[in-house]
Amino acid sequence: MIQTPYLLFLGDAPDTLAAKVAQGIKDWRPELAVGQLRLPGCNADMGIDDLTLDEAVAKGAKTLVIGVANRGGLISESWMGMLKSALAAGMDLASGLHKYLGDEPALVDLARQHGRTLHDVRIPSVAYPIANGKKRGGKRCLAVGSDCSIGKMYTALCVEREMRQRGMNATFRATGQTGILITGSGVPLDAVVADFMAGAVEYLTPDNDADHWDLIEGQGSIFHPSYSGVSMALIHGGQPDALILCDEPNRPHMRGLPEYRAQSLEQLRETALLLGRIVNPDCRVTGIALNTSAMDGDEAAEHVAMVEKQMGLPTVDPYRHGAERLVDALG
Amino acid sequence: MIQTPYLLFLGDAPDTLAAKVAQGIKDWRPELAVGQLRLPGCNADMGIDDLTLDEAVAKGAKTLVIGVANRGGLISESWMGMLKSALAAGMDLASGLHKYLGDEPALVDLARQHGRTLHDVRIPSVAYPIANGKKRGGKRCLAVGSDCSIGKMYTALCVEREMRQRGMNATFRATGQTGILITGSGVPLDAVVADFMAGAVEYLTPDNDADHWDLIEGQGSIFHPSYSGVSMALIHGGQPDALILCDEPNRPHMRGLPEYRAQSLEQLRETALLLGRIVNPDCRVTGIALNTSAMDGDEAAEHVAMVEKQMGLPTVDPYRHGAERLVDALG
Repeated sequence: MIQTPYLLFLGDAPDTLAAKVAQGIKDWRPELAVGQLRLPGCNADMGIDDLTLDEAVAKGAKTLVIGVANRGGLISESWMGMLKSALAAGMDLASGLHKYLGDEPALVDLARQHGRTLHDVRIPSVAYPIANGKKRGGKRCLAVGSDCSIGKMYTALCVEREMRQRGMNATFRATGQTGILITGSGVPLDAVVADFMAGAVEYLTPDNDADHWDLIEGQGSIFHPSYSGVSMALIHGGQPDALILCDEPNRPHMRGLPEYRAQSLEQLRETALLLGRIVNPDCRVTGIALNTSAMDGDEAAEHVAMVEKQMGLPTVDPYRHGAERLVDALG
Repeated sequence: MIQTPYLLFLGDAPDTLAAKVAQGIKDWRPELAVGQLRLPGCNADMGIDDLTLDEAVAKGAKTLVIGVANRGGLISESWMGMLKSALAAGMDLASGLHKYLGDEPALVDLARQHGRTLHDVRIPSVAYPIANGKKRGGKRCLAVGSDCSIGKMYTALCVEREMRQRGMNATFRATGQTGILITGSGVPLDAVVADFMAGAVEYLTPDNDADHWDLIEGQGSIFHPSYSGVSMALIHGGQPDALILCDEPNRPHMRGLPEYRAQSLEQLRETALLLGRIVNPDCRVTGIALNTSAMDGDEAAEHVAMVEKQMGLPTVDPYRHGAERLVDALG
């Protein structure tokens, strides 16, 4: 568990897009962010208070979260002074970068000296068990994508938010770096050793109350040859009762793989259901989440209606239109 | 690459079953074993020459392979003297045990002193890439199982042997500890980090001559919830042209999971083909390998004939009856 609340560190982000992690926290857990800290030259802005380290500590900030990614996932030299000062000021550090905080001797020494913790959320922090396949109490919904980076995390978060607004018992379960930094816990599934992937998902979604829903963040796609093993472990470790199909209209091919045509929603439904029913015979596809961020309002509405008719399933862009109908379908 | 030939170390194995790795090498690569070395109390016997370390070195042995597994996969105290002497005599050590040779300071020191190498084949030795999904030259056949420990490795080795006897261009590709020790190379797939599984399989089965066959050792099963992610990565990293379905008749449930009924060969064919065609539209199921080791000869013959009729595919127990018909079907 990463200690909250956070101070969001935007570094020298050239634009808001580079501050994707900070944006995710601000969009989904605004109550966890006491403010933002920007270096000279920063062009990103979360629209929350700019704080110094001392002001953030005074407001209760426990962890400085690196909310920005630069090319290559490195820890920029220009950040180091501020990261060191944050440790000295009494905050932990948390990062989802490829380059680890724990590989920076200066930060390791300072953290030890001040009794602080460095959280590299790309490194699994638990010795996960091998999956036992046992049925757990509670219900689970998994977002499965026709491709990578298609809106699975935002879909699960939208469903969780809608369920909580209805007073339902629901927990978003993060399986990637950004999701973990947004919520403060989870499993960095793509960094887990193969034998323990499904066990890590079981660990993440344990036995629960009968009316409790886990909203599990998907990873990769069963159609994406680079990452499909991770997607499979999510289906078989998660034993989902419900699958929500995630798609972005008009993708010409799988992400990063021009030789692989995008697969249809019909194929995704058929394949995901076949795999899901191996572990849960009652597994159903309950809805479709379209990522229409590249469309204007009319086009998005038209597309959503067309897919709903084609597939015969409740279809929305949950981030744009709300997740009400997806939650209704989970009933 | 592990240097060959080997001296097979049987330790104090209580029976031949405990010397499964040595048995595999003796069954499949007898030309790689100059002899066996047994400690007092050993009841296993590969039926090859008993040699001292010096005799083995004189016969050219380059590596002492730990061919025995004891409970828990530990390195037995009673073996240590002989392992040290083997290093001093100029041999490398190779092991597929859970406990690593490299975690024994005495062995590490001695190996350094004598310029020898310790091979822990459970540890990936390569920084595998992320899969790129590109089509490679050559052909690939993957053994897929209805369950774990069902005969996938022996099936791939049987097909490779038959192909080589016919003068065909064929390579068995090991993906597990025993397979790696049998052949001296391969990828310990269940120990690879999730993001790199499919890339490791691509690395293992690179671009090749048009008439070359990779016979890929399967792992786990797409039906076994603990390991299905690894099986998926094999299908999507391997891009198989041909799948051979492996089954053991009369298994009541999935290995280690009493709640999971065994799945039918029809289901295996349907699911494996659906997944295989995502990466290779020409993927076919070409035959069935039954593990009839628990049956007498008549029962085995009867069962094989029954399954052949039921499935309409060439069906054999390749270890018992030969792999001719499986190779014929790969044409």
